[in-house]
Amino acid sequence: MMIDTTAGVTAPQGFLAAGVDAGISHKDKADLALVVSQGPRYVASAVFTTNRFAAAPVAWTRGVMADRQVRAVVLNSGGANACTGAQGRQDAQQMAHVAAGLVGCAPDDVAVCSTGLIGETLPMEAVVDGIAAAHAALSRDGGADAAQAIMTTDTCSKQAAHRSPHGWSVAGMAKGAGMLAPALATMLVVLTTDALMDADEADAALRAATRVSFDRADSDGCMSTNDTVILMANGASGVRPGPEFQEALREVCVSLAKQLIADAEGAEHSITVSVQNAASEEDAVEVARSVARSNLFKCAVAGNDPNWGRVLASIGTTNAPFDPDQVDVRFNGVPVFVAGAPDVPRDQVDLSPFDVLVEIDLHAGDAEASIWTNDLTHGYVSENSDYSS
Amino acid sequence: MMIDTTAGVTAPQGFLAAGVDAGISHKDKADLALVVSQGPRYVASAVFTTNRFAAAPVAWTRGVMADRQVRAVVLNSGGANACTGAQGRQDAQQMAHVAAGLVGCAPDDVAVCSTGLIGETLPMEAVVDGIAAAHAALSRDGGADAAQAIMTTDTCSKQAAHRSPHGWSVAGMAKGAGMLAPALATMLVVLTTDALMDADEADAALRAATRVSFDRADSDGCMSTNDTVILMANGASGVRPGPEFQEALREVCVSLAKQLIADAEGAEHSITVSVQNAASEEDAVEVARSVARSNLFKCAVAGNDPNWGRVLASIGTTNAPFDPDQVDVRFNGVPVFVAGAPDVPRDQVDLSPFDVLVEIDLHAGDAEASIWTNDLTHGYVSENSDYSS
Repeated sequence: MMIDTTAGVTAPQGFLAAGVDAGISHKDKADLALVVSQGPRYVASAVFTTNRFAAAPVAWTRGVMADRQVRAVVLNSGGANACTGAQGRQDAQQMAHVAAGLVGCAPDDVAVCSTGLIGETLPMEAVVDGIAAAHAALSRDGGADAAQAIMTTDTCSKQAAHRSPHGWSVAGMAKGAGMLAPALATMLVVLTTDALMDADEADAALRAATRVSFDRADSDGCMSTNDTVILMANGASGVRPGPEFQEALREVCVSLAKQLIADAEGAEHSITVSVQNAASEEDAVEVARSVARSNLFKCAVAGNDPNWGRVLASIGTTNAPFDPDQVDVRFNGVPVFVAGAPDVPRDQVDLSPFDVLVEIDLHAGDAEASIWTNDLTHGYVSENSDYSS
Repeated sequence: MMIDTTAGVTAPQGFLAAGVDAGISHKDKADLALVVSQGPRYVASAVFTTNRFAAAPVAWTRGVMADRQVRAVVLNSGGANACTGAQGRQDAQQMAHVAAGLVGCAPDDVAVCSTGLIGETLPMEAVVDGIAAAHAALSRDGGADAAQAIMTTDTCSKQAAHRSPHGWSVAGMAKGAGMLAPALATMLVVLTTDALMDADEADAALRAATRVSFDRADSDGCMSTNDTVILMANGASGVRPGPEFQEALREVCVSLAKQLIADAEGAEHSITVSVQNAASEEDAVEVARSVARSNLFKCAVAGNDPNWGRVLASIGTTNAPFDPDQVDVRFNGVPVFVAGAPDVPRDQVDLSPFDVLVEIDLHAGDAEASIWTNDLTHGYVSENSDYSS
């Protein structure tokens, strides 16, 4: 399926977007984005972080989603508006009210997303002026600017689009290495489609897609207070899609998820941990995630070291059914551990390419799953020891 | 309670020890240790990693512990003998047989511990010669040499001893930052006492002590294949201790656990995460451990940044009962977050000292627990990206 990573939220018909520098972040870059649906429908669905310290904009947007209708999303980088108490809740609400006034809709049809440092209140004067500027800048080709505006430590913006030969499109933008539940470095994703569907269909499609895309990306095991994925379906194409819509939405999400991991903080390798022949998909995910969360394994990959012992040590912490004497491990196709014993010497493995594939065969069933992660590097330590200073 | 960190396994009466350079590791240092109990009793207890890829020496020593009797422990650095298949099992067994022949006891009274790289078989000729050399070097003051011999990436050896005014002593040595279940960088601990006790008493004391010491140390969240803690009680003092033995054993273990964390790979800060007023001790441990495992929090501490948002983001991933609007967080005594909102500005916190205290008040009960961890630094990445090369 063709995915175009140069187009984003304004690829489908009937969506406008903009990104402007509102002076919220200290960086000399756009930091406020607005995405507006022109209808005729305003069907929407969203999934959020499960963090119990969910940020004020998450709480606001959960409320907005109650009627499963959204006409606009306002997003800012430069501040997460998380753990900011009553002031933070008021600020998130104000962002929606200001955007609603400009767009001409009800405040509870405006979703709000924020990303940045936790625990600081937003400079609301700059935010309000920024929303007005973004509204004035809205355009049919503003998707790229919006994708730029939500970046924090991202080094490049992330977009993906699929255009169906049947006349509808689905597309999206994302920021921040991480995953839905969990991951810090906040993941914000806005997905748009002009396909015709009702709210139940949108919701089912979004949940099915995120389950095997963003939920399978695990950069550093940390769960954000702000993660949000919103899908807006405006029906502007007039075309009711077939089951291929589900596939297209999933592929757009997979593309965005892989772009996030490839640009994760400090990443020098993008790693796919693929578990095969597990007793269940849940077991496969548990085993793959245990490896993806091993700091020792991830440091070894940073050093181009195929240290499969650290892979086994992680698998050994799980409850998944398997016989330790029947497990195989391959690094980039080389079988380094077969049937419970060392096999091809580790110096036969070349980890110098950016993409690394670790395959684990549990010989315990026929289910499989992959988790996408990245290595743990000096760059990660540097970015995260100076972040708020 | 007085703990002497300059004395170790030979502080109690009736224990001999030695550490020699057997040429197992590439480093120019001792790498094989032997600890021998002279009786009259050979009471012993042990706890092991729960990793399902437990190393060959762990499997061997589990068998040895069946009769709760140990006369000697042979330990090597320079190779973990883990995930080494049938050859590895044979090698661990041979180490016990060789030591038993020299000591003059049954092989199943000899425990074996190994630490180093996973997946490589041991150079058995060097190991066998090393055991003979260590046996020849056994002495009443060999504890320090033994503690040196088990070091891998440790920068200093770890010992602790308590001498009771009632005539008995308890002491130990340890290597490798980590915890029992889990942690890689293998933790090996040998504890000795000349107090008089039976196997049930030794076992109960060991489990009670490790639960609140090694199990509360969490350097990097990774579980080793080799972690082993062995207690030998030879009754040589002839004194049956009172309940203060439990306290003494615990304090020796706490001292060793804190020494491990202070010398964890790359550690520039030793961090105590203390959770207060939890609904249960289990909840307190869950919350403290979630913070201790946050790479983002640990990088922030490396940068002297009191990033309490990352503490809350970690707490928010747990299932412990608390009201997010009632949680307080203090960094080194400074209340940075009180009752769900920011309080004293973060720039009032000084994280330049080596020891960092993070206090979390859940206002949900009266239980408490602490986890000891360390920061995530460039040194950790360096040590673990070059380890096997």
